[in-house]
Amino acid sequence: MNQALEGVKVLDLTRVLAGPYATMVLGDMGADIIKIEMPGVGDDSRQFGPYVKGESAYFLSLNRNKRSITLNLKKEKARQLFIEMVKKCDVVVENFRPGTMEKLGLGYEELKKINPSIIYAACSGFGHTGPYSQRAAYDAVVQAMGGIMSITGEKDGKPTRVGPSIGDITAGLFSAIGILSALNYRNQTGKGQMVDVAMLDCQVAILENAIARYVVTGEIPMPAGNRHTSIVPFEPFETLDGEIMIAAGNDGLWGKLCKIMNREDLIADDRFKTNPLRNQNYAELRPIIAKIIGTKTSKEWLQILEEAGVPNGPINTIDKVLENPQINAREMIKEVYHPTAGGLKMPGVPIKMSETQGEIVKPAPILGQHTEEILKELLNLTSDEILNLQKEDIF
Amino acid sequence: MNQALEGVKVLDLTRVLAGPYATMVLGDMGADIIKIEMPGVGDDSRQFGPYVKGESAYFLSLNRNKRSITLNLKKEKARQLFIEMVKKCDVVVENFRPGTMEKLGLGYEELKKINPSIIYAACSGFGHTGPYSQRAAYDAVVQAMGGIMSITGEKDGKPTRVGPSIGDITAGLFSAIGILSALNYRNQTGKGQMVDVAMLDCQVAILENAIARYVVTGEIPMPAGNRHTSIVPFEPFETLDGEIMIAAGNDGLWGKLCKIMNREDLIADDRFKTNPLRNQNYAELRPIIAKIIGTKTSKEWLQILEEAGVPNGPINTIDKVLENPQINAREMIKEVYHPTAGGLKMPGVPIKMSETQGEIVKPAPILGQHTEEILKELLNLTSDEILNLQKEDIF
Repeated sequence: MNQALEGVKVLDLTRVLAGPYATMVLGDMGADIIKIEMPGVGDDSRQFGPYVKGESAYFLSLNRNKRSITLNLKKEKARQLFIEMVKKCDVVVENFRPGTMEKLGLGYEELKKINPSIIYAACSGFGHTGPYSQRAAYDAVVQAMGGIMSITGEKDGKPTRVGPSIGDITAGLFSAIGILSALNYRNQTGKGQMVDVAMLDCQVAILENAIARYVVTGEIPMPAGNRHTSIVPFEPFETLDGEIMIAAGNDGLWGKLCKIMNREDLIADDRFKTNPLRNQNYAELRPIIAKIIGTKTSKEWLQILEEAGVPNGPINTIDKVLENPQINAREMIKEVYHPTAGGLKMPGVPIKMSETQGEIVKPAPILGQHTEEILKELLNLTSDEILNLQKEDIF
Repeated sequence: MNQALEGVKVLDLTRVLAGPYATMVLGDMGADIIKIEMPGVGDDSRQFGPYVKGESAYFLSLNRNKRSITLNLKKEKARQLFIEMVKKCDVVVENFRPGTMEKLGLGYEELKKINPSIIYAACSGFGHTGPYSQRAAYDAVVQAMGGIMSITGEKDGKPTRVGPSIGDITAGLFSAIGILSALNYRNQTGKGQMVDVAMLDCQVAILENAIARYVVTGEIPMPAGNRHTSIVPFEPFETLDGEIMIAAGNDGLWGKLCKIMNREDLIADDRFKTNPLRNQNYAELRPIIAKIIGTKTSKEWLQILEEAGVPNGPINTIDKVLENPQINAREMIKEVYHPTAGGLKMPGVPIKMSETQGEIVKPAPILGQHTEEILKELLNLTSDEILNLQKEDIF
């Protein structure tokens, strides 16, 4: 056994982002991800630009380590094949609107009759229960509704959407955690179950201290800009040629910062001695620091701050992320070779394990690339049987 | 077995956010989280405001379902007790700077000699390898360095920090996934291993399509405001009394939106017929929609949009999140009773499971609340032995 989830077989009906992110994470850990796609079309995100030699870079980034089989589940014979596959697999994952699988006669209640050990994970916008259950959701909708936008943005500014689709991605991560927890339960008891994760719920789960602050103080949290809400100085400052983050999280670090600014007098200054005082006199302190930081380049300051041990960082654009020595040393940018698209850089595996290292062992599949292979392997179909089924347009 | 991770014993040395978030998720799924804290002080976040009757609401929100034992690991007898506990437990989690556990003689290499099945998870700012490994990180630093700030914010505006500490939280989620994957491997092979998760790596892992866009087009992604980068209309609009999100993700939904705006003429309008055209003529289209949406209240529009089936949502502030019927139907706001603080509302469990429902079975512990209980239970110490140890100030 070389990978942590080796031998775990996942029937993956997911499309676009939340579901495919969950199965990507499982695939990175070694699970066998069998991606089931509609013949001729496939995952909607195969149509999302930008393209590399006709392949969607979006799709390629999210579907590494997966195999693709096409199956038109609206046809009875395809449904039967799917049911046979459920008998041989450990996990089914889908991110349809609740009710879609039931309409196909493939809801959890049906599937558990066929395989009581099956783990069935459903990742949807609002979940399988509650008054909004049937509503369509997009990332932008759950970011708006779940509160994260209301606490992101410039101070006194408008609610701001988080750039990456954090509504989808966190739902993908919680789905993976649910599936793995269910797998542990199944390893002990033999029993499967349904895991129901809603994008909106996950937005609430990641609000951090905003709920506590509101319920205790009664004050509605608002966008706070890039400043820490209670520590000073802990925010970006402009340099001669850009902007850097300086995070002097305690009095010791504040002292170090004063020294490298050649302003040791500030350490004993009655206005700035302690963090509460620095908070109180922020309006006086910020311009003093800003003026000094503005005199050197980002590179110069980052080196000085680093040598002094004051937490700091550049505010990297994506091109700089790809060049960052730590990110590269951790193999967090991997170039994956795809037979059609060629080499494509994508994020690596962020879970580093000493015995079962996560890996990108194969590129994203082309549509239906493994249909024959999977049907032979899971269901022992012969080439002739597959050829006959093909004539009926079920894949 | 009532919970998915029942019987999984976790020695939790984590503080503040990333690590405690990981163990909270495991605790919600039923793992026994034994939180080891420094005598007299405890987790730093016990000092973070706001307070309810002397207890930190921040701490209470993140440490439900955990038990607390105090142990001064700098004392040899405490170290020995910890080592005895490692023999009886499944997982050790810490989020110290790399090297801290080694200095205590409790690094993974030592612990695996004591218990080869132990799963040792380390969650740090930059990870246990690479040139930045020894640097201190804060959420703000990894958000800056990892690129997410550079693609969040108003169009043509400045890089913007995501309100909640997404750098910590995603590292907590990936750590939980790593631990559960390692648990599956151990269930099969009996072998433990080390899981090393870096906050910075996780920021790269959630950049979504930003890396693909950059490597394919060569254009550096920038803050894009609240607009979808390729779909129109898909953004907030101001109403008479607020702002709402409208997400007309395809031509069908665009048609429905035109109808409810009483502007069916726009459907056939050559400038707006298809999504590419709506993108191209965005400058003309946006004011037309904005003017109409500005004529009714948010409540009126949300109802009209919902009835027409156009994805929509209010941009909720935190007070509205707490009142939302779907969020409440899903029990995503739970009031948890704490013996000192009384009732406190906090996020519920976002993973809904049919057989082993995640639960908040106990409030966050007071410092050292379970020291005696845990020492008796895990190590069979007697009350007298505990009393004697207590005199040596090891807990």
